[in-house]
Amino acid sequence: MSEESRVLNFSAGPSAIPVPVLRQAQQQMLNYNGSGCSVMELSHRGATFDKIIKDAEKDLRELLSIPLSYKVLFMQGGGTGQFAAVPLNLCPRLKEQKADYLVTGAWSQKAAKEAGQYVQVNLVTPKVDKYTKIPPASEWKLSPDSAYFYYCDNETIHGVEFPEVPNVSRLLVCDMSSNILTRPVDVSKFGVIFAGAQKNLGPAGVTIAIVREDLLSSPASVCPSVLSYKTTAENDSLYNTPPTYAIYLLGLVLKWIKSEGGVAEMQARSEKKSQGLYDLIEQSRGFYISTVEKGFRSRITIPFRIRCDDALEKKFVKEAESAGMIQLKGHRSVGGIRASMFNAMDVSQAAKLFEFMKKFQADNQ
Amino acid sequence: MSEESRVLNFSAGPSAIPVPVLRQAQQQMLNYNGSGCSVMELSHRGATFDKIIKDAEKDLRELLSIPLSYKVLFMQGGGTGQFAAVPLNLCPRLKEQKADYLVTGAWSQKAAKEAGQYVQVNLVTPKVDKYTKIPPASEWKLSPDSAYFYYCDNETIHGVEFPEVPNVSRLLVCDMSSNILTRPVDVSKFGVIFAGAQKNLGPAGVTIAIVREDLLSSPASVCPSVLSYKTTAENDSLYNTPPTYAIYLLGLVLKWIKSEGGVAEMQARSEKKSQGLYDLIEQSRGFYISTVEKGFRSRITIPFRIRCDDALEKKFVKEAESAGMIQLKGHRSVGGIRASMFNAMDVSQAAKLFEFMKKFQADNQ
Repeated sequence: MSEESRVLNFSAGPSAIPVPVLRQAQQQMLNYNGSGCSVMELSHRGATFDKIIKDAEKDLRELLSIPLSYKVLFMQGGGTGQFAAVPLNLCPRLKEQKADYLVTGAWSQKAAKEAGQYVQVNLVTPKVDKYTKIPPASEWKLSPDSAYFYYCDNETIHGVEFPEVPNVSRLLVCDMSSNILTRPVDVSKFGVIFAGAQKNLGPAGVTIAIVREDLLSSPASVCPSVLSYKTTAENDSLYNTPPTYAIYLLGLVLKWIKSEGGVAEMQARSEKKSQGLYDLIEQSRGFYISTVEKGFRSRITIPFRIRCDDALEKKFVKEAESAGMIQLKGHRSVGGIRASMFNAMDVSQAAKLFEFMKKFQADNQ
Repeated sequence: MSEESRVLNFSAGPSAIPVPVLRQAQQQMLNYNGSGCSVMELSHRGATFDKIIKDAEKDLRELLSIPLSYKVLFMQGGGTGQFAAVPLNLCPRLKEQKADYLVTGAWSQKAAKEAGQYVQVNLVTPKVDKYTKIPPASEWKLSPDSAYFYYCDNETIHGVEFPEVPNVSRLLVCDMSSNILTRPVDVSKFGVIFAGAQKNLGPAGVTIAIVREDLLSSPASVCPSVLSYKTTAENDSLYNTPPTYAIYLLGLVLKWIKSEGGVAEMQARSEKKSQGLYDLIEQSRGFYISTVEKGFRSRITIPFRIRCDDALEKKFVKEAESAGMIQLKGHRSVGGIRASMFNAMDVSQAAKLFEFMKKFQADNQ
């Protein structure tokens, strides 16, 4: 199957995987490194898989400069699993405890809702109808006694991204599912960082949790073992059978990122791709419209409207598909267009979208 | 990579995958059915993946004759996730409720322990040091008011398998992770059947739960969304991003089983493989020793000793590996030898093990 027959995939997740990773997985499908087995047939307790998972951890630690005082956990259940895991692991006294949530889009909203099953959730900003910015820190109303402060670094649906780490005197918990490894991060500022793999890390089915060691001691008594940071850490992510093949692919993606130049290079590419799109929007004289205020615009998942014209947007999506560019339809909850450009999408691929957008504007002015 | 270079994999899980499945996955790795994407790059809400997950459900329903009054759920977290999900979904009043557990090996023991976090667990038989049989039903002490009766149909570590479905007047919950699709099952006798995929169904990372519809209504308030049968069922297993690639592979395995003759054929092969091994053990005049009483011997995961001689067993494992037969070492908790022969291992492959065993006995009498 030639690379030429592949489409450009702007999906918000599961997302494009680097072609060299797919080729390597394809080549190793029936026999991994002379083991005589596919990776998915290997015992998770054998030496061959042990090296795969240890390498993945080592590469992630290197790429994100994760301090030794943090554990790297490979879990199941995605971001939604973590929405429960965070309060279950950090608030052993459950409803007696409080947690601050800064809601800046659909995913932090979902996280706050799930946390509300377990703890007293304090929304630090008033509810809004549309998410277009991050309210200034001076307006955040934190609980004096909250166990942690939760936020989502990049909202994939609404396209709101934090320009920097919030400066609050609380234990920080962050969902970085959609922008992990797209810029450097000072892990030492956080208590917990988590990320579902299916955007920048690999296939759906494995979730990374980076947890400060002092937070591992006391999960709530009702925390299922599979969501327990303590149990997962004490067993090197092998308490139960981990999603071995997904971890293997995640490891290949990490090696690919390293070979391409690491996080600094991914950051540079993200800037180029997103700046190219935002410049095009600015220069379109109102044909393309960003739905997010400047300063909070995502570098990764970029929603926009076309003259706020549903019919024109439908035409755009259809013609883009014909041109081999898929998944440009905005999320069903917000409409419009969305271009997600994770690490696997390179600058020249993004440029093809920009060319298409210019032509579409010229044809439909 | 030629098939000849592949080993015979007796791992208890993750386990061997049928070679035609691996070949198809390999061929479709960069471009699934002309979609221009790998399956792992497809949106879980798009039409292409929708057909994959619907086909998998349809094929499983057909293979197991699952009544329409049961939901088929694709979940994450493996059997260990289900150990928590079962009480969390069936006992909304948690510690006010009781559940009966029949412990016949390591996995039902783990399930009972996890359930004890949530409900009052009644062990229906006294604790034993070694698991070698299923105590007769006349000795089981059920709670008069238990919410369900839990058992593990085949214990992979101890090799104890139920010859038939227990006849108890309780809601039946069964872990069929290691023998699902190796014999027909009357699903209508059960409230919940679950199975991690990594033995008979595909790769690790996806778990099947077959749940009677009337049991979906009232999970406990502390049940995480990712473990909620209700939430999963109401959203057709798409409440959060499912492990799409694992579901695709599971679907390919189901199609392979259908093409080979379905569950009846898998049952016939399991009988042939296990009977061949047990006959060889019987005829070895005490050289090979079964650790399980007749009538309860697993057809799938077969532990045995070699003269109860650790050194000889070590030699056996080593020489088997040299002969291209891997993962024959017994579980670290019980020692000895274990041969796991799931559906992907055919009769002729099992026969190679038997030949090796005969020669090993002749050489080491």
